[in-house]
Amino acid sequence: MTEYTQIIVEKADGIATITLNRPDKMNAYTRTMGEEIIAAMDDIDADDAVRAVIFTGAGERAFCAGADLTPEDGGQVFASGDTVDSLSDARVRDGGGLLTLRLFESKKPLISACNGVAVGVGATMQLAMDIRLAAAHARYGFVFARRGIVPEAASSWFLPRIVGISQALEWCYSGRIFDAGEAKAGGLVRSVHAPEDLLFAARALALEIAENTSAISVAMTRAMMWRLMSADHPMEAHKIDSRAIYRLSRGADAAEGIASFLEKRKPMYPGKVSADMPDFYPWWDNRAYE
Amino acid sequence: MTEYTQIIVEKADGIATITLNRPDKMNAYTRTMGEEIIAAMDDIDADDAVRAVIFTGAGERAFCAGADLTPEDGGQVFASGDTVDSLSDARVRDGGGLLTLRLFESKKPLISACNGVAVGVGATMQLAMDIRLAAAHARYGFVFARRGIVPEAASSWFLPRIVGISQALEWCYSGRIFDAGEAKAGGLVRSVHAPEDLLFAARALALEIAENTSAISVAMTRAMMWRLMSADHPMEAHKIDSRAIYRLSRGADAAEGIASFLEKRKPMYPGKVSADMPDFYPWWDNRAYE
Amino acid sequence: MTEYTQIIVEKADGIATITLNRPDKMNAYTRTMGEEIIAAMDDIDADDAVRAVIFTGAGERAFCAGADLTPEDGGQVFASGDTVDSLSDARVRDGGGLLTLRLFESKKPLISACNGVAVGVGATMQLAMDIRLAAAHARYGFVFARRGIVPEAASSWFLPRIVGISQALEWCYSGRIFDAGEAKAGGLVRSVHAPEDLLFAARALALEIAENTSAISVAMTRAMMWRLMSADHPMEAHKIDSRAIYRLSRGADAAEGIASFLEKRKPMYPGKVSADMPDFYPWWDNRAYE
Repeated sequence: MTEYTQIIVEKADGIATITLNRPDKMNAYTRTMGEEIIAAMDDIDADDAVRAVIFTGAGERAFCAGADLTPEDGGQVFASGDTVDSLSDARVRDGGGLLTLRLFESKKPLISACNGVAVGVGATMQLAMDIRLAAAHARYGFVFARRGIVPEAASSWFLPRIVGISQALEWCYSGRIFDAGEAKAGGLVRSVHAPEDLLFAARALALEIAENTSAISVAMTRAMMWRLMSADHPMEAHKIDSRAIYRLSRGADAAEGIASFLEKRKPMYPGKVSADMPDFYPWWDNRAYE
Repeated sequence: MTEYTQIIVEKADGIATITLNRPDKMNAYTRTMGEEIIAAMDDIDADDAVRAVIFTGAGERAFCAGADLTPEDGGQVFASGDTVDSLSDARVRDGGGLLTLRLFESKKPLISACNGVAVGVGATMQLAMDIRLAAAHARYGFVFARRGIVPEAASSWFLPRIVGISQALEWCYSGRIFDAGEAKAGGLVRSVHAPEDLLFAARALALEIAENTSAISVAMTRAMMWRLMSADHPMEAHKIDSRAIYRLSRGADAAEGIASFLEKRKPMYPGKVSADMPDFYPWWDNRAYE
Repeated sequence: MTEYTQIIVEKADGIATITLNRPDKMNAYTRTMGEEIIAAMDDIDADDAVRAVIFTGAGERAFCAGADLTPEDGGQVFASGDTVDSLSDARVRDGGGLLTLRLFESKKPLISACNGVAVGVGATMQLAMDIRLAAAHARYGFVFARRGIVPEAASSWFLPRIVGISQALEWCYSGRIFDAGEAKAGGLVRSVHAPEDLLFAARALALEIAENTSAISVAMTRAMMWRLMSADHPMEAHKIDSRAIYRLSRGADAAEGIASFLEKRKPMYPGKVSADMPDFYPWWDNRAYE
C-alpha cells in the first residue's frame, strides 16, 4: 500500500475507507492531503476488490475544518507571496477543484461519513461524493463570502444540483455555520446518525452495494447519471443506455444476475471494472482546462 | 378504437386511462406492450376530447413488474441469441427508451397511478410521466445493477431531475426494492393513497386540469417546461414565452379565459390542440438517434 | 432618489426594500411598474451601500395580483388592438421576462417577502429572486392555463429549477391558487411567517449577509451559481472559480476576512462591487434576444 502521510486508507469487505488524518489540526486540508486523496482514488479505481469508498475524518471533532492557511504546515493553498506572472497555469488551478474533478471521474460509489466540522473545502469536497451521511454533531459552512473569496472546488456546479439554487445561495451568501439538522432539511445530507453509529450506517450502505450488485453496472451507472443528467435532451441518455443495455445484457454479469435471482442466492458477478467495461466506455472526451 | 392486446384504453370525462393489462404476469413489459402504449399515445394526442392521461396496472398486485424475459411471451426484450452484427441500428435501441421518448413528446399531461409493484422498466417508464401517485402498498425498484445491466429508458436523464442526483444514485447503486413511503420522502411520488382511493385521486387531479384550463395552454406548458428547463440561460425561455404570450393572448382561449373569469362560470375553451397550436409550435427539431 | 410612481424604494442598514405600491389595485403589475423596478435595480447595483434587496407589496392583501389588464391603468400588458405587423420586435417581448432577465443580472442578493396574493407575474417575478419568504396568508397561482396563455417571465426555466419538474407542471397544469403551506411543502418558499414577522425575518436574513460578508464575494457567488449550475460539466465551474480564488485570495477583502476572524470582530470589507470586481467579470457575453 502506498505511504500516505495525511490520510489513512483501509480496505476491508469490499469497502475502502479514506480517513483524513490530521486530527490535531481538525483535519485541515493541505495540498499534500489533496494529492494523497487523488493518489488513493487512482489506486482504488484500479483495485477490483474495492466496490465502494467511505470518506471520514480522524478524531471526534472534525471531518475537515477547511484549507490550512498556516505556512508551517506547508499547506499554502493560497501562495500569497507569488505574483500572477510567476505562476504557471497549472499552479493557478484551485486545489479543491482538482480534487472534486478527480472524484467526479470515480468508478466506485463515494459515500461521505461526516463526523464533525466540515467547513470550506471540507464541505465542498463532499459535494462530489454521491451520498452524504452526517453525525448529529456535524457542522457545515460554505464560509467563502466571510473570507472575501468565492465557493471553490466547482461547488457552484455541484451544490445547486444537490440542494437547489435557493438553498445553495442562502448558505453561500450568509456563510453561516449550520448544523446537521439544517443540512438534512436542506437536502445536503441523506441521514443523520449518533456519532457511534455513523460509520456503521455508511458501511451498511456500502455493503448493500458490494454484496448485491455488479461492479460494472455500478461504474456505468455512476458515469451515466452524473454526465447525462445535464444533457439538454433525454435522447442523449437513450443513445448511451441503448448501447449499454445491448452489450451488458449479453454479458457474464447479466447471466449471473438472472441465475442468482432464480436460484435465490447471493450473486458472484465475474465482471471487473479494470478490464471488462463496455468498449465504448468512456464515451466522453476528457474535458481540458483552458 | 384500436385493438390492443396488452393494454386497455378507456376514455371518459376528458380523461384517457391506459391500463397495463397482463395481470397474470404482474403486467410485465413486452415489446408489444410498448408498441401498444405508443400507438395509444398517438391516438390520444390526436383526440381533442382527451385532456389528460392516467396510467395504471390491471389487478391489485402490480403496476408493472419489469421486462418480461420469458420467451413464450414473445417479450424477448433482450434477444440474447442475436449477435451484434445481425442487428440493425433500430433494433439495437432500448425499448424502454423508445417508450419514454414518445411520452416526452406528449401533448397531454401524463399522470401515473402506481397501484403496486413497479420494477425496472415498470419504474423507469413512470419517470417520463409528469406527476406520480402511489398506492400505499406500491413498491419500486431500479434493480438494474442487481441484474448486471444499467438504468434504461433514458432514466439517467429523468431520474436525477425528479429526485436529485444523490437519491437517484442511491436507488440505482443499491438496486433495492423500496416502499411508497420511501418513494414519497425521496421525491419520486407526489402523494400516497389507500389502494381504493388511488384512481379517484388521480382522476381528481386530471379533472382539475380538464375542467379549468385551455388544452393549448397545457400542451404549450408541457413542451416549454420539459424542454426549456435544461436550457443554459433563461433567455431561451424568454424567446419562446414572448412569442407564445403574444400569440395566445390574442386568441380565442384567452378571450374565453377572461370572459369566464368575469362571468364566474366554468370556461369552454374553443382551441384545439390538433389544429390551433401557435404556428411556431413545435419550435424544436426532432432529435435524431445517431 | 429617482421619482417612482408605482413602487417605493427605501434604503437603510445596507438593505434596499422595493415595495410594489398600488395597494388599491392589489399591486397589479403594469409596464410602468416593470420599468420602475428595472430602474431601481440599475440604481441599486451601482450603489455600494446596498448589500441586499427585499421585495414586498404595499398593504396587507397582496404582493402582486398579476398583470393589470384594465386599459385605464395604462397597463396594457397585452395590447390587443395591435396587429402582429405593427409591432416592433422589442415591443413583442414579454414584459415579465424583461423584468426577470434584469433580476437575473443582479449583483445583489434578492429576497422576496411575499405578503399576500401573488398570481401570474406576481408569482413568476419572484422566481428570479434568490430566496422566497411567505406570510402565512400568502396565496400563489401560476394561473396561465386558466387564462388561455402560458407561463411567462422565463418561468419555464426558473420554476423547474426551484421546485422540480413535477411540482412545476402540477401548479402550471392546474392553474390552481395554493396557500403558503403548499408553497413551503413544494419548495417554492423557504419559510412561512406570521404577517407581522415577515419583513423582520427577511431583514434578519439580509442583515446576516450585509454584516458578515464581502460584497464582491456575494456578487461573484450570485453570478457563479445561477450561471454555472447549468453548465454541462463541473470543469466550467472550475475554470471560473480557479481564477476567482486566485485573484480574490490576494485581495483586500480576503485580508480583512482573515484579520477580522483572527481578531474576533465584525469585518469591514473595503471592496466595492462598483469598482473592484475581478477583471474577468463578467466572463460571459450578454445573451441577445433574436
